[in-house]
Amino acid sequence: MDILQNIQSPQDVRNLSIGEMDKLCEELRGKIIETVSENGGHLSSNLGVVELTVALHKQFDLPQDRIVWDVGHQCYCHKLLTGRAKQFDTLRKSGGISGFPSPKESEYDTFVMGHSSTSISAALGMAKANTLAGNENYVVAVIGDGAITGGLAYEGLCNGGRDNDRLIVVLNDNRMSINRNVGFVARHLASLRSRPRYVKAKKDVGNALAAIPLIGKPARRLLTRGKLQLKQAVYQNSSVFEEMGYYYLGPVDGHDLNDLLSALQTAKNLNRPVLLHVETNKGQGYSPALENPDIYHGVSGFQRETGRTTRGGRCFSQVAGESLCTLAKDDEKLCVVTAAMTDGTGLSTFAKQYPNRFFDVGIAEEHAVTFASGMATNGLSPVFAVYSTFLQRAYDQLLNDTAIMNNHIVLAIDRAGLVPDDGETHQGLFDVPFLSTIPNTTVFAPSTFEELSLHLKQAVYDTKGIAAVRYPKGGEFPALAMYQPTDRPFTHFRNQHARTLVITYGRLFSNVLQAVRQLRDEMPLSVMKLNRIHPLPKEVFKLIEQYHRVVFFEEGAREGGVAAQLGAKLMERKYRGTYEFYTIDSFVPACTVEEGLAQCGLDVNSMVQTLHKTEGLKHVK
Amino acid sequence: MDILQNIQSPQDVRNLSIGEMDKLCEELRGKIIETVSENGGHLSSNLGVVELTVALHKQFDLPQDRIVWDVGHQCYCHKLLTGRAKQFDTLRKSGGISGFPSPKESEYDTFVMGHSSTSISAALGMAKANTLAGNENYVVAVIGDGAITGGLAYEGLCNGGRDNDRLIVVLNDNRMSINRNVGFVARHLASLRSRPRYVKAKKDVGNALAAIPLIGKPARRLLTRGKLQLKQAVYQNSSVFEEMGYYYLGPVDGHDLNDLLSALQTAKNLNRPVLLHVETNKGQGYSPALENPDIYHGVSGFQRETGRTTRGGRCFSQVAGESLCTLAKDDEKLCVVTAAMTDGTGLSTFAKQYPNRFFDVGIAEEHAVTFASGMATNGLSPVFAVYSTFLQRAYDQLLNDTAIMNNHIVLAIDRAGLVPDDGETHQGLFDVPFLSTIPNTTVFAPSTFEELSLHLKQAVYDTKGIAAVRYPKGGEFPALAMYQPTDRPFTHFRNQHARTLVITYGRLFSNVLQAVRQLRDEMPLSVMKLNRIHPLPKEVFKLIEQYHRVVFFEEGAREGGVAAQLGAKLMERKYRGTYEFYTIDSFVPACTVEEGLAQCGLDVNSMVQTLHKTEGLKHVK
Repeated sequence: MDILQNIQSPQDVRNLSIGEMDKLCEELRGKIIETVSENGGHLSSNLGVVELTVALHKQFDLPQDRIVWDVGHQCYCHKLLTGRAKQFDTLRKSGGISGFPSPKESEYDTFVMGHSSTSISAALGMAKANTLAGNENYVVAVIGDGAITGGLAYEGLCNGGRDNDRLIVVLNDNRMSINRNVGFVARHLASLRSRPRYVKAKKDVGNALAAIPLIGKPARRLLTRGKLQLKQAVYQNSSVFEEMGYYYLGPVDGHDLNDLLSALQTAKNLNRPVLLHVETNKGQGYSPALENPDIYHGVSGFQRETGRTTRGGRCFSQVAGESLCTLAKDDEKLCVVTAAMTDGTGLSTFAKQYPNRFFDVGIAEEHAVTFASGMATNGLSPVFAVYSTFLQRAYDQLLNDTAIMNNHIVLAIDRAGLVPDDGETHQGLFDVPFLSTIPNTTVFAPSTFEELSLHLKQAVYDTKGIAAVRYPKGGEFPALAMYQPTDRPFTHFRNQHARTLVITYGRLFSNVLQAVRQLRDEMPLSVMKLNRIHPLPKEVFKLIEQYHRVVFFEEGAREGGVAAQLGAKLMERKYRGTYEFYTIDSFVPACTVEEGLAQCGLDVNSMVQTLHKTEGLKHVK
Repeated sequence: MDILQNIQSPQDVRNLSIGEMDKLCEELRGKIIETVSENGGHLSSNLGVVELTVALHKQFDLPQDRIVWDVGHQCYCHKLLTGRAKQFDTLRKSGGISGFPSPKESEYDTFVMGHSSTSISAALGMAKANTLAGNENYVVAVIGDGAITGGLAYEGLCNGGRDNDRLIVVLNDNRMSINRNVGFVARHLASLRSRPRYVKAKKDVGNALAAIPLIGKPARRLLTRGKLQLKQAVYQNSSVFEEMGYYYLGPVDGHDLNDLLSALQTAKNLNRPVLLHVETNKGQGYSPALENPDIYHGVSGFQRETGRTTRGGRCFSQVAGESLCTLAKDDEKLCVVTAAMTDGTGLSTFAKQYPNRFFDVGIAEEHAVTFASGMATNGLSPVFAVYSTFLQRAYDQLLNDTAIMNNHIVLAIDRAGLVPDDGETHQGLFDVPFLSTIPNTTVFAPSTFEELSLHLKQAVYDTKGIAAVRYPKGGEFPALAMYQPTDRPFTHFRNQHARTLVITYGRLFSNVLQAVRQLRDEMPLSVMKLNRIHPLPKEVFKLIEQYHRVVFFEEGAREGGVAAQLGAKLMERKYRGTYEFYTIDSFVPACTVEEGLAQCGLDVNSMVQTLHKTEGLKHVK
């Protein structure tokens, strides 16, 4: 790490020779493989953009120029080059370096980028500010060919080409979208790729122009006036991107520093919106990842020499996938939709077994919901499997395109609650609050694998309108071995002597059980586990009347959560006992689930302490 | 109305001759002009699709084949042809014919279409159901060139071309998007339009093929096998739509029934996804609308002979526009963003005075928010002016792209609360619930014009994070003449003898004042008007302690609304008085604001009755 250790800021990269930059790329790859093998994280995509990142740092004047990474998990090299190499072993750890760009962490991180397809819109906003202020800085959006399938990216792309802002869109084409065969951009890129690479083919002209760090005024004038002719000599054409208003450059070999540097220089000289098409290989430089980019897309850790990945135990995603296969076997109306998350949501087997009834729509959550609602209109039973955080993108499609008609669609909401290591943008804390604002919506919250299967079945067959089943990332929490699932909306574990009722749902039920067990000898407690968390089962209110104190523990956001909903209803019903609720009050940065729960007072110890507080017990009914 | 009065269903249209269809088109135009001049509604777009609608009804087998209108306000002819001509004078009236497609109203209305850009996704869902069931029905999405600028339409378009479903996308190109110059589809359509029209240019080949109602097997085989050659002879090419997987047909004169019929027949015969590009004129057949399609896009009524439109009085939208102009005068960082709603949000003057700082991004609410957040990153003060119901589309962009960074953007939320005549899809009832789930968000609710100006200023200069100001469609409610605005978060009108406190916000304050005045002699009441409705001002809770009974009237959804939020907080704080809240509990179909408020118990009379109930007064603290 001879070179990397001397890089404190982009200025240091700008002073390197090509040879040193090549060496730097090697060191960066080593550091990334080392760190991700230990900490887990996104490997393939980061190995793919090593040269691109070094070239961007060489050619642009950061932080005045800005880079917006889309999706942000490809920012590891960028972080290593901007003063964060020494702390890089804290990647994705609580209090450590975030696995996504974080403006709080560094002035070189321009925008929170945890959801894909956002970069062009954000970059255009920044570029407009530059244009209005009359400053000549550039804003570069680096967006993958997967991310560009999202509608927001399209909206950004269309708007980005309208004026003469200094906006450079680097389309990082690693051919991931092509697997899914989604949309025309993938096909269009494929047709562009089939042509000779622009710099290599026209080395003499291309390099002559691009190698000059700052093209002199006369040359620039020539470039502007004679743009069309020159262009046709030097570059390939793309009618699509040009109709969008961009100057198209590419395709460029994204692992050739010389090519990248000259293309970026050309892009800068054009002083107008440019789309630079760069071809990279996911996993470049590490053969296990190069051969299986999907497996190494996001990993929880692996053996460096063999590449063997750490496999977790059985998890909720798997169970969801298996349950859907079981249901599909007997029901040919059952279809499954995913938005580029087949593996993540445990649907690989379903996709193989029922290819005609499986729809991977690309990164297009809005479409997924409206499409599902359309299916329901014509008699199908669609299930959309999606991460909680990404479902946020389809709020209006649920409300306007589904709930108003009371169409029956099922949401299998994966990664609900705290999600380990990814931080603010990936926590699944808001699905309950936002779904609860949508009429004609039912939400189930299983605590165990068996319950997940049961609730999915209830959601498909015994529920009208939007029926959501939400479950966490990973496996079952302990302490639930003896627990038998039920299809009733809640379960009441009554202790005859209890004056206090503890309410919870989902995997937190395990913590509550443990806390109650610890307190067994000092404090009799009843427990209510909600299975259907919205709308609240009516019988709940009568039962609550029997207690002097109610304590609700919820792994979800406070505003609009189930606990808050119950609070409003208890107030309306003139409940005169004490009501306390403990939830998650703000965005939660990267941490393990255990750490996150402890921070929010939702671990077993905190629960014990909370329940110990005697103020509630003193209250006389 | 000789022909129209005999049309009860599409079967009747299928029996008409071309001459009769021409006559029918004339009658339809007359009926639409007559009804809209009385009831208000969407005029230009409906006059533009008369021939297209008749041709679709002639060529397709409704309701087995399905038409999905996007956006749905162009469905008047469709409604007139499907058994609703007799009730058509109830258009947009309470209990009458909805101005948008409504499956509840008719089996010929396939999907609720009040928000644009949704049709292709919904239609594809229906087409997939047909494909899976092995039935040979067609699904036709009719989408305008404006609606196709939305990201959801792009996602739908990309997915729609992937398989061999019987999906026909009719792109109704009335050149509205071109005014805004948004995106490449507009430019691409323009380039396609510049070519000769397909049927006219190649009449012999085109008509020969298309005029045969059902092309025989050999001809069809020829068409399939020799597709490419034939196609180049007969039709123009569109590389974009073809790269998306569609067979492109067009452009076709959308006011020529023969051309339309033959093009639709060809589209049917292809048995694969087709994009049919139809050119229409908004307002066709009524010269005032033809000349000023924007003015007649949505009107509240007009004089039939002269075309003079009814102009309402001064309204909140105007005041918002003027206030933003005033702020922009002294602050060159202030920028305004709109999503194809310049006139609707009162921004025409701003757009003229500050063209460099005004951004109409097309129908792209997601982009608008992320773009604004990007602007804020680089030091600008962006204000996004948007209708409440359309802001629903940008939930994740607010939460993930703005709130996590605590970026400061202002939302000027127009059409908040009940919106007259448009029905479920246009009510502004959910902005408070969904915004309240987003951390770092502040919401103001002015009751008067003066307050709107004041709150906008507070939102821009005295608030961090997301600052929303929400205000209704139309003008001020009466009874507020003496009311002086304040920059404090709430105003408490104390009656020394009152045991009951009435809380409200926004224009409902006017109704509350009137109700309290009516009850003056029988019941002393205090009133609290909230100005900042989220987060709730802390001082509110202490004041509430002084009352035995609190009654909250809210013009907004119940779940997650301000009243519910207050209820949860009162429960947590052990308030022991009575708390009742009256809100809007479900989707509200078309009605006037007065009717809607009365239905929900929020008119003055209902409030008087509610407050009369003495149960609360009996409760002893």
